Amino acid sequence: MLRVGYIGLGLMGKSIARNILKAGFPVVVHNRSRTAVDELVAEGAAAANSPKEVAEQVDIVFTNLPDSPDVEKVALGENGILAGANPGLIFVDNSTIKPASARMIAEKLKEKGVLALDAPVSGGDIGAKNGTLTIMVGGEAEALEKVMPVFQAMGKTVTHVGEAGAGQVAKAANQIMVAAQMVAMGELLVFSKKAGVDPRKVVDAIKGGAAQCWTLDVKPPRLFEGNRNPGFKAYMQLKDMGIVLDTAKEYDIPISATEENTKFFRQMIEQGMGELDNSAVVGIIEKLAGVDVP
Amino acid sequence: MLRVGYIGLGLMGKSIARNILKAGFPVVVHNRSRTAVDELVAEGAAAANSPKEVAEQVDIVFTNLPDSPDVEKVALGENGILAGANPGLIFVDNSTIKPASARMIAEKLKEKGVLALDAPVSGGDIGAKNGTLTIMVGGEAEALEKVMPVFQAMGKTVTHVGEAGAGQVAKAANQIMVAAQMVAMGELLVFSKKAGVDPRKVVDAIKGGAAQCWTLDVKPPRLFEGNRNPGFKAYMQLKDMGIVLDTAKEYDIPISATEENTKFFRQMIEQGMGELDNSAVVGIIEKLAGVDVP
Repeated sequence: MLRVGYIGLGLMGKSIARNILKAGFPVVVHNRSRTAVDELVAEGAAAANSPKEVAEQVDIVFTNLPDSPDVEKVALGENGILAGANPGLIFVDNSTIKPASARMIAEKLKEKGVLALDAPVSGGDIGAKNGTLTIMVGGEAEALEKVMPVFQAMGKTVTHVGEAGAGQVAKAANQIMVAAQMVAMGELLVFSKKAGVDPRKVVDAIKGGAAQCWTLDVKPPRLFEGNRNPGFKAYMQLKDMGIVLDTAKEYDIPISATEENTKFFRQMIEQGMGELDNSAVVGIIEKLAGVDVP
Repeated sequence: MLRVGYIGLGLMGKSIARNILKAGFPVVVHNRSRTAVDELVAEGAAAANSPKEVAEQVDIVFTNLPDSPDVEKVALGENGILAGANPGLIFVDNSTIKPASARMIAEKLKEKGVLALDAPVSGGDIGAKNGTLTIMVGGEAEALEKVMPVFQAMGKTVTHVGEAGAGQVAKAANQIMVAAQMVAMGELLVFSKKAGVDPRKVVDAIKGGAAQCWTLDVKPPRLFEGNRNPGFKAYMQLKDMGIVLDTAKEYDIPISATEENTKFFRQMIEQGMGELDNSAVVGIIEKLAGVDVP
């Protein structure tokens, strides 16, 4: 049986690690704060004191961390994964980070005989809990084959997008669409309300046609109840848009609509709405328009 | 059996009229050019020489015309519907026009005892053909009840959104989302390509997650085959965005992301791409980026 390490037990990481554990894999966990560690230990996981200690004990080590510098440090830094890697260890990063950072990490690890997969996910906290995540994988097929049984415990769709970094490019592409839908939903809800029509009825009318999307299926019922809690936090959406825009700059890619959509999430953070759900971006448009949707 | 009139036998109108005919209703048709009229007459419809002549012979009269002035003229003008209306006639407009225009027409008709429904549709030429359109209805419930058997012959979802004009507000809201998705799809395809990743794989990876939408389900396979034919023409998308922006101006609704998205469709028309599918908006981004997606 593959021994699995999981580092980073946030909203997503804890649920994913739990599903791996439930699928019968021995799991070693590490997290900066102890609460989540204790919870998983009570369910059968082992705890380690550093990424290095995790790596020493496992065949596959996952990370799920906030941003590129965190993953770089945990993978390559002092007391990091590379420092504890046995020959044949596979490194899998579930974080959403810059494609360029994922490529750099994969190269440095490969020099030491460690294969790496960038494997960001989509599907939110619910997908993580239910093991129905969409997993976008960059890296070598050989490594993916070995990790596949573990991916199957955490997601319903696993796509090998391409070489190192390709999973992160797919995730950035995903966020381009998600941001567009969230902002468009905000604008159409405010538009309907100000034009004197019940936004609930409008959503009912359009959600089965060409406008159909997961966003319109899932978010409006929550918004109409006055629930703007995450889900997926606005400041994380903005962080991901930063990755998109940085990558666009690096490759000289013109994405002016995405730049416009990003402004809305930046305004959310500036106006103290960063801890709300990304769908709460409607609040920015409500303020400008002087109406409340629900 | 309700006698039905259908005026405006374009790409959408002809398919809708045919489905009404197939459902067993006697149908009288009128169109500026004769070809579509002859086709439907061969299938059992009757022809009339003017909107007035259509109205004289039917219980419900539909229009499906390019823009607000066309509908106003056919409904209220010389030899128009009002001129031929018997007591109890119901007017149903399947066109996408300004909510304000729909309201004005409904008011003028009501003064003469004719009830009106604005009933724009979504689902494209395929939806019209297969009788699976999404129909967004504004107007009085009494009229909707009478028209419902005919709507059931042409669509799969009928939503009573609100009073006169509310169907058009829903359609405008629909186009806010559709425009956002089309532009975002264009940007994410170009983004992926320029970042060195196969856009096909990226679409495969993301279409089942939070980015899921009808647009990503239906359009990429066509684009990847090099097929940019309509579907729904770019110049019609731009016309609809004009309705959205005019209405936003009328009600003082801030929709800056929609304004940004609209620019892309305006550029399509300026660059001679108006007859292509709305998904061909990716071509604008390809030109800016200097790459071809497929």
